[in-house]
Amino acid sequence: MIPRYARPEMVAIWDPQTRFRIWFEIEAHACDAQAALGVIPKEAAAAVWKAKDAEFDIARIDAIEAVTKHDVIAFLTHLGEIVGAEEARFVHQGMTSSDVLDTAFNIQLCRAADLLMAGLDRVCAALKARAFEHRLTPRIGRSHGIHAEPTTLGLTFARFFAEMDRNRARLRAAREEVATGAISGPVGTFASIDPAVEAHVCAKMGLRPEPISTQIIPRDRHAMFFATLGVIASSIENIAIEIRHMQRSEVMEAEEYFSPGQKGSSAMPHKRNPVLTENLTGLARLVRSAVVPALENVALWHERDISHSSVERGIAPDATIHLDFALHRLAGVIEKLVVYPERMRANLDRFRGLVHSQRVLLALTQAGMTREAAYAAVQRNAMRAWEQEADFKALLMADPEVTAALPPEDRRLFDLAHHLRHVDAIFARVFGADQTV
Amino acid sequence: MIPRYARPEMVAIWDPQTRFRIWFEIEAHACDAQAALGVIPKEAAAAVWKAKDAEFDIARIDAIEAVTKHDVIAFLTHLGEIVGAEEARFVHQGMTSSDVLDTAFNIQLCRAADLLMAGLDRVCAALKARAFEHRLTPRIGRSHGIHAEPTTLGLTFARFFAEMDRNRARLRAAREEVATGAISGPVGTFASIDPAVEAHVCAKMGLRPEPISTQIIPRDRHAMFFATLGVIASSIENIAIEIRHMQRSEVMEAEEYFSPGQKGSSAMPHKRNPVLTENLTGLARLVRSAVVPALENVALWHERDISHSSVERGIAPDATIHLDFALHRLAGVIEKLVVYPERMRANLDRFRGLVHSQRVLLALTQAGMTREAAYAAVQRNAMRAWEQEADFKALLMADPEVTAALPPEDRRLFDLAHHLRHVDAIFARVFGADQTV
Amino acid sequence: MIPRYARPEMVAIWDPQTRFRIWFEIEAHACDAQAALGVIPKEAAAAVWKAKDAEFDIARIDAIEAVTKHDVIAFLTHLGEIVGAEEARFVHQGMTSSDVLDTAFNIQLCRAADLLMAGLDRVCAALKARAFEHRLTPRIGRSHGIHAEPTTLGLTFARFFAEMDRNRARLRAAREEVATGAISGPVGTFASIDPAVEAHVCAKMGLRPEPISTQIIPRDRHAMFFATLGVIASSIENIAIEIRHMQRSEVMEAEEYFSPGQKGSSAMPHKRNPVLTENLTGLARLVRSAVVPALENVALWHERDISHSSVERGIAPDATIHLDFALHRLAGVIEKLVVYPERMRANLDRFRGLVHSQRVLLALTQAGMTREAAYAAVQRNAMRAWEQEADFKALLMADPEVTAALPPEDRRLFDLAHHLRHVDAIFARVFGADQTV
Amino acid sequence: MIPRYARPEMVAIWDPQTRFRIWFEIEAHACDAQAALGVIPKEAAAAVWKAKDAEFDIARIDAIEAVTKHDVIAFLTHLGEIVGAEEARFVHQGMTSSDVLDTAFNIQLCRAADLLMAGLDRVCAALKARAFEHRLTPRIGRSHGIHAEPTTLGLTFARFFAEMDRNRARLRAAREEVATGAISGPVGTFASIDPAVEAHVCAKMGLRPEPISTQIIPRDRHAMFFATLGVIASSIENIAIEIRHMQRSEVMEAEEYFSPGQKGSSAMPHKRNPVLTENLTGLARLVRSAVVPALENVALWHERDISHSSVERGIAPDATIHLDFALHRLAGVIEKLVVYPERMRANLDRFRGLVHSQRVLLALTQAGMTREAAYAAVQRNAMRAWEQEADFKALLMADPEVTAALPPEDRRLFDLAHHLRHVDAIFARVFGADQTV
Repeated sequence: MIPRYARPEMVAIWDPQTRFRIWFEIEAHACDAQAALGVIPKEAAAAVWKAKDAEFDIARIDAIEAVTKHDVIAFLTHLGEIVGAEEARFVHQGMTSSDVLDTAFNIQLCRAADLLMAGLDRVCAALKARAFEHRLTPRIGRSHGIHAEPTTLGLTFARFFAEMDRNRARLRAAREEVATGAISGPVGTFASIDPAVEAHVCAKMGLRPEPISTQIIPRDRHAMFFATLGVIASSIENIAIEIRHMQRSEVMEAEEYFSPGQKGSSAMPHKRNPVLTENLTGLARLVRSAVVPALENVALWHERDISHSSVERGIAPDATIHLDFALHRLAGVIEKLVVYPERMRANLDRFRGLVHSQRVLLALTQAGMTREAAYAAVQRNAMRAWEQEADFKALLMADPEVTAALPPEDRRLFDLAHHLRHVDAIFARVFGADQTV
Repeated sequence: MIPRYARPEMVAIWDPQTRFRIWFEIEAHACDAQAALGVIPKEAAAAVWKAKDAEFDIARIDAIEAVTKHDVIAFLTHLGEIVGAEEARFVHQGMTSSDVLDTAFNIQLCRAADLLMAGLDRVCAALKARAFEHRLTPRIGRSHGIHAEPTTLGLTFARFFAEMDRNRARLRAAREEVATGAISGPVGTFASIDPAVEAHVCAKMGLRPEPISTQIIPRDRHAMFFATLGVIASSIENIAIEIRHMQRSEVMEAEEYFSPGQKGSSAMPHKRNPVLTENLTGLARLVRSAVVPALENVALWHERDISHSSVERGIAPDATIHLDFALHRLAGVIEKLVVYPERMRANLDRFRGLVHSQRVLLALTQAGMTREAAYAAVQRNAMRAWEQEADFKALLMADPEVTAALPPEDRRLFDLAHHLRHVDAIFARVFGADQTV
Repeated sequence: MIPRYARPEMVAIWDPQTRFRIWFEIEAHACDAQAALGVIPKEAAAAVWKAKDAEFDIARIDAIEAVTKHDVIAFLTHLGEIVGAEEARFVHQGMTSSDVLDTAFNIQLCRAADLLMAGLDRVCAALKARAFEHRLTPRIGRSHGIHAEPTTLGLTFARFFAEMDRNRARLRAAREEVATGAISGPVGTFASIDPAVEAHVCAKMGLRPEPISTQIIPRDRHAMFFATLGVIASSIENIAIEIRHMQRSEVMEAEEYFSPGQKGSSAMPHKRNPVLTENLTGLARLVRSAVVPALENVALWHERDISHSSVERGIAPDATIHLDFALHRLAGVIEKLVVYPERMRANLDRFRGLVHSQRVLLALTQAGMTREAAYAAVQRNAMRAWEQEADFKALLMADPEVTAALPPEDRRLFDLAHHLRHVDAIFARVFGADQTV
Repeated sequence: MIPRYARPEMVAIWDPQTRFRIWFEIEAHACDAQAALGVIPKEAAAAVWKAKDAEFDIARIDAIEAVTKHDVIAFLTHLGEIVGAEEARFVHQGMTSSDVLDTAFNIQLCRAADLLMAGLDRVCAALKARAFEHRLTPRIGRSHGIHAEPTTLGLTFARFFAEMDRNRARLRAAREEVATGAISGPVGTFASIDPAVEAHVCAKMGLRPEPISTQIIPRDRHAMFFATLGVIASSIENIAIEIRHMQRSEVMEAEEYFSPGQKGSSAMPHKRNPVLTENLTGLARLVRSAVVPALENVALWHERDISHSSVERGIAPDATIHLDFALHRLAGVIEKLVVYPERMRANLDRFRGLVHSQRVLLALTQAGMTREAAYAAVQRNAMRAWEQEADFKALLMADPEVTAALPPEDRRLFDLAHHLRHVDAIFARVFGADQTV
């Protein structure tokens, strides 16, 4: 985890204190269930809750683990120090360490998913706001980096909104994948613990019982989770690349917000670098790097091997923390993006009407010219416009073959409004009935 | 695509003839819609359907493309040769090549997903059948490759069923992701084509209109699709690894089916290699290799760049064909897997009862011994059993401290049935009400 | 393998005929060595060479394999049909299939590496030629996509040359990695074959004996090989991205060559798409996708498992064929790239001298102004130039504080030559003594 | 970076204090060179060295960076606080931040490579020692996890030595890749700084000048570096998997060292889990995850974009720290691996001689029997041995057809020594003349 790309809310989820708190709650709820089943004394279960508001001493737990080489035993020993060794002897009865570890891990992932969802919500809100703001701000559409036909900046934001909205649905599904818990004992047979314990703990912790676990919760769930984060990261890259292109010196259609006092480039006013979106491009690569190891984690030996563990100690905090940071950084960039509509218009007009050539061609064909004749007419005027840096429309209007074919109303082929007439329909498809920001 | 790892059904989806057939249908339906809108003559739309049952001449289309360097134009030219150039001049009106290419690509992916689903269904059916067959076949559960506690082979199959059943849900979601079509023109603004055309074509082809497209359908959808295939492939590896372990010489709990006449190893009867599951392990790597490039395909420049195209020409057929083959190979392996319950039992008994040591420990604790005393009692007998290769149970029953603590009925701690008593409950969770195979 | 991204030379290396030819040579040389050792009759060894110029019947071999399910046995059976079953019975004596398969595979990889090297050579030659051609063609250098300071197009080509030249060294090392052969029997102990056979075959086939093999040649070698191809692919992407940027409508500093008759965009003369470099971007992703599975192939079970095989059937032809194609496509793009020096100059001058602001700042500091005062002077004039779209140099020369500090000769701060004075030195570092193209 | 998988030596390399120390040295040497060129006063250069033994105040630098949003400026400001603002004003003259950042980064990578080399050396030494110790310890060789023919444990260690020795060569090459420095100014043209400064700094810091840089050192170098780490990680996984297999309950040929007092499993003496090698398997995945983002970092925009930076902030410390830890963990595992030669022998004899069937077949053929007759003879005895759990050799020696063919001396076909006779030759190939440990 790279501290400078981390928000405290997400870091807290992966903090040892949080993890031990979750472990405690799992163990305590399990004791309640065991007591209800008559497996352990009710008083023992009640006693465990004495640690409800205790702060766990991380250093102490680490010290114990250094001796026992076992994290859960270290925690339980420390718990005994808090609630009393005698009362604590019934804790963890019939459970295996993974019952605690995996259930807690999934709770952390669910919480992480909730934070990520908030980040996606903020990104979507920003995209929606800017989409409506620039619904009809004309801009040249580009394929292959080359001017094609007009579109609007609002449509650009709207498509990113649609993409990020899909990512919300994906993240929701990914969260569902890992919202399971398992308290099923050493190899998942419930040989030494009643399934009722699992049911109780899961209900209390907001999870579904894993229908069938081994010693662990199956890792295809986590593979899907991290693969989904990889897709979201790629969408962030997609938006970042668009903004970087808009900001490049020759395009200058938009800029990341640059605070007035921001040091460094004020001597070179043209030198405002899209460092935030470049950073997002890199963060996307970093988050994506969790996908392959998560996929490699699926195939474990028999009822479990522990090779997945070190991987998850790395990718789980890293991928969620960096993605969370990236979503908020992206939201900030979108919210404050400085847009230059005049530059967009200047770029749109750069080729003096040539971007309308396809539409002229179509109109001539529809007006009855053969495709070949229409093509020849468009081509000769387009080439002339290109080579002489002349106005394409003027040339066309001076070409008798063209004017003979086109009725006067069609001469408005260069009208931008033509390209924008379906924008509302598209917005309705993307944003639905709620056309308010 | 590696021909030996390909089934003809899936290969056919990626065959040029299939692709051109889909292109034709898209264009013909688009003509119908354009005719209904009055954009093109009804007769022209009707004429296009003359090619309905025609075989397209791939070599001819290739020859035209070699000149025009444009695949869609080559196809349209050839279509004109079939239906007549005059009738064909209204085909593709207002459309851009990507309207055809992307919509067709998604149709191919949907069909591929349908075939993959059939493969998953077959795998699930095989797993379910074997799960019920071996519901109570005892087997040692292993963590870290080391004997832990007893489980059953049926539980192993049941958990793989649950995993593959999850993959069905994932594949269903992945298919939904790519079940969209777009006929929205050069930069997605519908400037030269009415959205009604898209609606009609999508309805006819079983797709939803893409709410907002640029020149292309957004690639986050395909990233999610291929990421899902990567997860499924990893699950295949998971099962393959289990079978490879079961078949290794020292374990020999199961073997891939080996036909009586199968040449080569009959002089070495012990040498039956799990080559199918090893192959599946490799195929899993191959399918997974599509995930990263699919993620890298998301960030395209502006309204599109064509860098995704070459990637998809490779990964789309390769990943779907190899995964389809792998699913059916896996199903065959499971269906015909030769199981050796006696070997399972022999392995289970290998350590003369030591696998029950945890349960004894728990029973002693519950019988009132302190954890320390119970531990000491179990340990001394376990170490003796281990070092002297003696029977653990016999030693325990000869230990006065143990027999003093344990009531006679608890001496049945070594009863396997104890470990199997929740199997039915787990099966009910996995297979639901339908407990028939 | 995608046929349209394949050159016949590389495809031929992976052709079954080539593979069987190599298998034959390995077997025949092995017979010679076995005969020399007296293990098999000299006549038998001589007889095998009867197949020296034979065309192998692939369909026949496939038919035999369909029965025997073993590729090497199928080949040997067919070889027996050519040279006579009696003479053929000594072929393959003491060898295991992998002795042939792995040695042949490495020969194919070496030949592939040789072809790739030729491709790299062509790319390097093209880059060198264009570097010298444009050694002093001024161009704005950009960091973050934003204008920074002047450089030359020749330096751009020169750095790509240096990168591709490094790739030559890497490919040379990668070829060395896989230039080994092994004829060491079932588990690599030479139990049934003398090491002299391996030595003879390797000498004849241009390989080094693998110092220690198991049944197979260790796969860390191949992992390194494919990782190297992944690096080369990334360098291709690097150059491709540069060209795509140069060609985008607002930059237009260079274009992929567009043949005069090339159909499609002549009606839109501004619409010349960098489709070749976009394609190269995608091919880079495709080639890179071989890296991870090659790394996953390293860890095999004990003396071998065959999981690597299906992976290599895919990635070996695919990665080498696509990379080979990509190198030649890239070379063609560079050789014929249409360069627009005037556009470069226009872009360079776009900000009316502001790109020199750093240099002015430095000069003022060196002239004795404090950094703060110098900064303030530069900043006020830069901001004025930016906001009023005025000439930066003119404004500076009208600023008394500046002219007081700067001696007249320093007023030539805007001289481009200043930025180009080390170009020759850099060229000497990159191209060495050989400054001819 | 996961603290529990980190050694302080490697962590120190990535410590801010180390980084600032390197930055300082680069700046101070650059001042010397600038002073020698007469660009800055000799006194200013000398003054900078006042900070030679200073501890940099990280918190202070962070505080400045929080304001300036620029790490190098923050450092320089703090440096000014140490050496005096006046003296410090000549520091960094003509340089761009990346001159410092990239040169320092490469120095860190070189130091990391040196530490990794020490780790590889330790692994190699351990492997060599164990190889010689078990040069002739017989062990069954396995292909596909199935018993094949005898080999020795020494050969297993020897081949891992050879693999790790290759990794030393690769790491050496990878270190060379990144052992370059660049002090070439904003876009790499040396416009504001003489190449002599770069030469001086590089000489002092143990680097070669980068022949041609832009604002940054080209990232194909780093891609190759991290790809190499990925290969080394895969080799670690390869050895880890072998040990995990040896330790599994049914094989038990070796075990990770288990300290006598180690808590937890002493009540289950059979339950000694190979947790270290499982952990290494996971760490291998983690280290490998750096490869793809490093490859994606190669293609930057024009003279640089900063997307690589966040990636490297993650992967550079993470991959080197975890790989370093893994190498030492692996070395420890090998050094202390508990080997059970008797279990190896028992496994070898498990199939009562059937592992020699191939050799018998060969002997019969060489003795003049047709392949078919020999095959039939071997097969019928092998099947009988298999089905009746009888001794293969005894059956063969009782088969008249066999005894008729085989001369008495060939009856020693079951002699293990036959399989070991080339071990010395192989050791000579692997370890060369130095056959001492």
